[in-house]
Amino acid sequence: MLKTTIIGASGYTGAELAIMVKKHPALTLSGLYVSANSLDAGKSIAELHGQLAGIVDDAVLPLTDVEAVAKQSDVVFLATAHEVSHDLAPVFLEHGCKVFDLSGAFRVNNSEFYPTFYGFEHQHGGWLENAAYGLAEWNVQQIKDAQLIAVPGCYPTASQLAIKPLVEAGLVDTQQWPVINAVSGVTGAGRKATMTNSFCEVSLHPYGVFTHRHQPEISSHLGCDVIFTPHLGNFKRGILATITMKLKAGVSEQDVAKAINDAYKEKPLVRIKNAMPQLQNVQKTPFCDIGWKVQGEHVIVASAIDNLLKGASSQAMQCVNIHFGYPELTALL
Amino acid sequence: MLKTTIIGASGYTGAELAIMVKKHPALTLSGLYVSANSLDAGKSIAELHGQLAGIVDDAVLPLTDVEAVAKQSDVVFLATAHEVSHDLAPVFLEHGCKVFDLSGAFRVNNSEFYPTFYGFEHQHGGWLENAAYGLAEWNVQQIKDAQLIAVPGCYPTASQLAIKPLVEAGLVDTQQWPVINAVSGVTGAGRKATMTNSFCEVSLHPYGVFTHRHQPEISSHLGCDVIFTPHLGNFKRGILATITMKLKAGVSEQDVAKAINDAYKEKPLVRIKNAMPQLQNVQKTPFCDIGWKVQGEHVIVASAIDNLLKGASSQAMQCVNIHFGYPELTALL
Amino acid sequence: MLKTTIIGASGYTGAELAIMVKKHPALTLSGLYVSANSLDAGKSIAELHGQLAGIVDDAVLPLTDVEAVAKQSDVVFLATAHEVSHDLAPVFLEHGCKVFDLSGAFRVNNSEFYPTFYGFEHQHGGWLENAAYGLAEWNVQQIKDAQLIAVPGCYPTASQLAIKPLVEAGLVDTQQWPVINAVSGVTGAGRKATMTNSFCEVSLHPYGVFTHRHQPEISSHLGCDVIFTPHLGNFKRGILATITMKLKAGVSEQDVAKAINDAYKEKPLVRIKNAMPQLQNVQKTPFCDIGWKVQGEHVIVASAIDNLLKGASSQAMQCVNIHFGYPELTALL
Amino acid sequence: MLKTTIIGASGYTGAELAIMVKKHPALTLSGLYVSANSLDAGKSIAELHGQLAGIVDDAVLPLTDVEAVAKQSDVVFLATAHEVSHDLAPVFLEHGCKVFDLSGAFRVNNSEFYPTFYGFEHQHGGWLENAAYGLAEWNVQQIKDAQLIAVPGCYPTASQLAIKPLVEAGLVDTQQWPVINAVSGVTGAGRKATMTNSFCEVSLHPYGVFTHRHQPEISSHLGCDVIFTPHLGNFKRGILATITMKLKAGVSEQDVAKAINDAYKEKPLVRIKNAMPQLQNVQKTPFCDIGWKVQGEHVIVASAIDNLLKGASSQAMQCVNIHFGYPELTALL
Repeated sequence: MLKTTIIGASGYTGAELAIMVKKHPALTLSGLYVSANSLDAGKSIAELHGQLAGIVDDAVLPLTDVEAVAKQSDVVFLATAHEVSHDLAPVFLEHGCKVFDLSGAFRVNNSEFYPTFYGFEHQHGGWLENAAYGLAEWNVQQIKDAQLIAVPGCYPTASQLAIKPLVEAGLVDTQQWPVINAVSGVTGAGRKATMTNSFCEVSLHPYGVFTHRHQPEISSHLGCDVIFTPHLGNFKRGILATITMKLKAGVSEQDVAKAINDAYKEKPLVRIKNAMPQLQNVQKTPFCDIGWKVQGEHVIVASAIDNLLKGASSQAMQCVNIHFGYPELTALL
Repeated sequence: MLKTTIIGASGYTGAELAIMVKKHPALTLSGLYVSANSLDAGKSIAELHGQLAGIVDDAVLPLTDVEAVAKQSDVVFLATAHEVSHDLAPVFLEHGCKVFDLSGAFRVNNSEFYPTFYGFEHQHGGWLENAAYGLAEWNVQQIKDAQLIAVPGCYPTASQLAIKPLVEAGLVDTQQWPVINAVSGVTGAGRKATMTNSFCEVSLHPYGVFTHRHQPEISSHLGCDVIFTPHLGNFKRGILATITMKLKAGVSEQDVAKAINDAYKEKPLVRIKNAMPQLQNVQKTPFCDIGWKVQGEHVIVASAIDNLLKGASSQAMQCVNIHFGYPELTALL
Repeated sequence: MLKTTIIGASGYTGAELAIMVKKHPALTLSGLYVSANSLDAGKSIAELHGQLAGIVDDAVLPLTDVEAVAKQSDVVFLATAHEVSHDLAPVFLEHGCKVFDLSGAFRVNNSEFYPTFYGFEHQHGGWLENAAYGLAEWNVQQIKDAQLIAVPGCYPTASQLAIKPLVEAGLVDTQQWPVINAVSGVTGAGRKATMTNSFCEVSLHPYGVFTHRHQPEISSHLGCDVIFTPHLGNFKRGILATITMKLKAGVSEQDVAKAINDAYKEKPLVRIKNAMPQLQNVQKTPFCDIGWKVQGEHVIVASAIDNLLKGASSQAMQCVNIHFGYPELTALL
Repeated sequence: MLKTTIIGASGYTGAELAIMVKKHPALTLSGLYVSANSLDAGKSIAELHGQLAGIVDDAVLPLTDVEAVAKQSDVVFLATAHEVSHDLAPVFLEHGCKVFDLSGAFRVNNSEFYPTFYGFEHQHGGWLENAAYGLAEWNVQQIKDAQLIAVPGCYPTASQLAIKPLVEAGLVDTQQWPVINAVSGVTGAGRKATMTNSFCEVSLHPYGVFTHRHQPEISSHLGCDVIFTPHLGNFKRGILATITMKLKAGVSEQDVAKAINDAYKEKPLVRIKNAMPQLQNVQKTPFCDIGWKVQGEHVIVASAIDNLLKGASSQAMQCVNIHFGYPELTALL
């Protein structure tokens, strides 16, 4: 049994991780932590997330002595803010822990990226260079080999799973930038009280136009420019991404079908649909549903995921399964 | 034209009042105010409430010199916290303004009520004694005569409009307390950022069981005990109240029908339905819909209102119309 | 492995059952059926319920030869209309199947009940008499012994789990009828297209006042009269029931606490909360959350369940686990 | 007073029209009609649309004698299916009525359009040729002059109001087709019971990809190709359209600002926002909110409207006001 620690257990992704660790036959939950000054420290996780009562009732503890926690952990999930992950990950890594980081701190191996999009200079270039990017269906070998797995963001997961088969197969005319329109549920903003997230203020609208940090994450890993426009939707969970692309001259509908089907034929968590995906079919599931259609020289691909699961926690657990050689779906269904 | 001032214009009820004042042919909007230290001071009201753009674009000003504002106002709406209304109302009243207070500061003429349920000693017993309780369909003469009108709370409006016809007609066995179950939209909690109001945390649940301050407000004005259980619902606007009562021996369905129909036959804003009321029929309207059913010795009456309108702002404007003798529906439809 | 058949697999409860059967280590899914003339016959269940893709992809077959299906089944779930269950259950029972019926066809052992509330004469008084009422936390021995288990309705499950501890302990003054106000999600009406269930028409409202067939089901099994007022809520899943009762003279808060805690201290699927229950904590879970409060001679108890799970499918599976002696939570979490 | 008739009064747009006709000081409601075989014929419109009670309570009558109705009408709103409008409009026009058609029957002056996208041959080429396209902010003179006004569809209104200023000013590189992603509320599908519109089945998803009939309507009136991807959203009312376009070389942010501001500076129902538009700011209003942002050679413009009002009924009434010379906002606010 691998001793498994969750840092950032008061948030929505931390709660999902806790449930999965409890279900996992090879993991044992060795500790739930929040930052030392959090008002939630000392409470039961089920007091913060009522749905966990009777499933996980452990207390969330203040993270005061990181080294002590590291010594008692084999696997560490970091469901923490970017800067916190940036600072904590190296400590756990140096103690030999396997680290699955759900933040953006180790996703893009480019020194200019962090000051520009995250507002801090990256201090751990070595770990950054050796981190695997945990897009589970695409980076199996890296996930197996790395000690640090940077789990992709929610929008990048939905977007890349839809676009990557076509770009990798050389079917897209990337001179004309793919246009990604995506709508996220409100849990994507985290568990906190803001006017933007107030029930009375939420209604569909675009935000972060041309400035969202997930745009360069997507571009960096796809290897092409994209236009990414996120929207806030009036639902709690899920992301729907609709992507419009120009195909290279001569690319047929059959070429598109083959590229997508080949990419995912052995991947049980990506479901290729005959129709366009529906958000509710993936909410509270670890799946990514993909639908697509070609007309003339354009293709539209749509993908749907649960932002907290395939866009965060269940993909992190999927990376655990891949890394340690457990069946890929363990604790996910 | 009556110069009309709204204090507390940054909140949801303030915004609704501003729209109605603009529509009212006999009122002119002379000022929108927020507390002097509010972060909203100086902004356009349409920046706070985007739907007002092009309708009301005036700035909300910091309320620094109350007396100066009072001198320039004929009509004052107080859409302010209870303690603020308690302190401000007398200043406006002493300058001769007609004051329509949407808070709880002058609703119950009982000195023990305020320390117990609002946490402060009432300092203005004289004004409290002379305030009209603005339940518009029932207190027409008092609303005409008073200088200060205490507009009822949202739950009390929905509850009393449903119960009062039967209690006044002497049909209810009040030894067995009427049971009021009511569900309110989230705007009822005001415009602010809290975890309770966070989009991701809102789902149907009871709150304030046996302790909500609207219970004694209802009991006081009905003249009988009630059990009042409020719930938070997953919608923005509206209240549905479902009330179960025991009838006195021998009371028939016809007696109930007569009492309800007689009470409201000349009241255009109360609609007696053949069926039970639906929340969406009253959302964003000034109406109260009422439905009822008798079986054996029990009656169930349900009522639905928009909590921000008939439960606050439009009832305040209805009181203005009654007080000054304008047609009752002016600016309401 | 027990061969398990689901009749009525095109509905919402059928889909939930299919997922649980797949997860259950002692059950094997031997067939999904719909009525012979259903337009859904022949389709994959994942075409009807997109979220099942990759989990259960079996076709739903037309039920043409009931006897043949019975011969190949050890366990049968009937997720069918009342009349259909009434006709089908005896066939399966006579072939030795264990039948778990989610309809109302065998819930109330009273010959007058069916003509009055379901519109048909019951033809199978023998089976009716011997059916266990599958309120899992209360009727363990009957569920173990019976060949036919009538799984309670969604409202009756929520209501009885809240009321029964107090009535059984003799704490309630039932001369004054308990008042049950309950709000259900729209899935409670089944998977079909009606104006009432149209997205644009749904908003909170009472329905079936004094006439809902769940009222006599509740009264019959509690052994006291109740007033039951159901409401339709603007959410997909879940029921919240708020119950107001008068306590017998001299009953204390401690008495109430003891009755409730004693009733459920060994029951892992009922969670007694310090606060009132929240709907979202039970949605998509098999739990029932209960909260309560006493003031003077009144008690308010609220309970929340997922209407499709604890109110139907997961309680049916819980009965399977009890009947066959599997751990009670198998396939439920 | 102009005698005003609404055909198709049982639908959502018909109900909105009825409210506006009642408010309009120059119009008198002379009749509400539904098709002769409708089950709604004979009912009060307030029975179909509960929110109208006390505002419009007229009966909806079966349309049996079109000529007789035409003789008693000055203004006719057709809130009817495309084929019905196609057949009815000429009858009313020949009797001298002014016809405001909310269907697609007269929107595109192209004989091939109707067989391809609406499934019928157009029989009234003369009226089609002389119809004004009622995009109110752009076609004032045509709306003044024509006897038949074809009010644009909901998606085309939102899309064109956002795109047209830039295309008309010659700023867009239309070689690269503008990409329109739009999300509509469920009322856009009309008032009817279908599985697609069932409360339990609605969740965000694309539909009609590459095949929606609003795509050629938009292209035809803009004069350039577009890619239009509609989505169904989990809300009742409103449309948000997000449009991505490539600018011609050398076009600056200032050029874009000038084009948009110039287009609407005298148009009170189009509100140019500093930020991206929010759906709830336009729900139940006649406004179109527009926001935009430029980066490099791309521009993103987003627009929001209420699909039943600016996307249908209030734009029809705006056309009435323009046609007859009433103040543009009459009966709209």
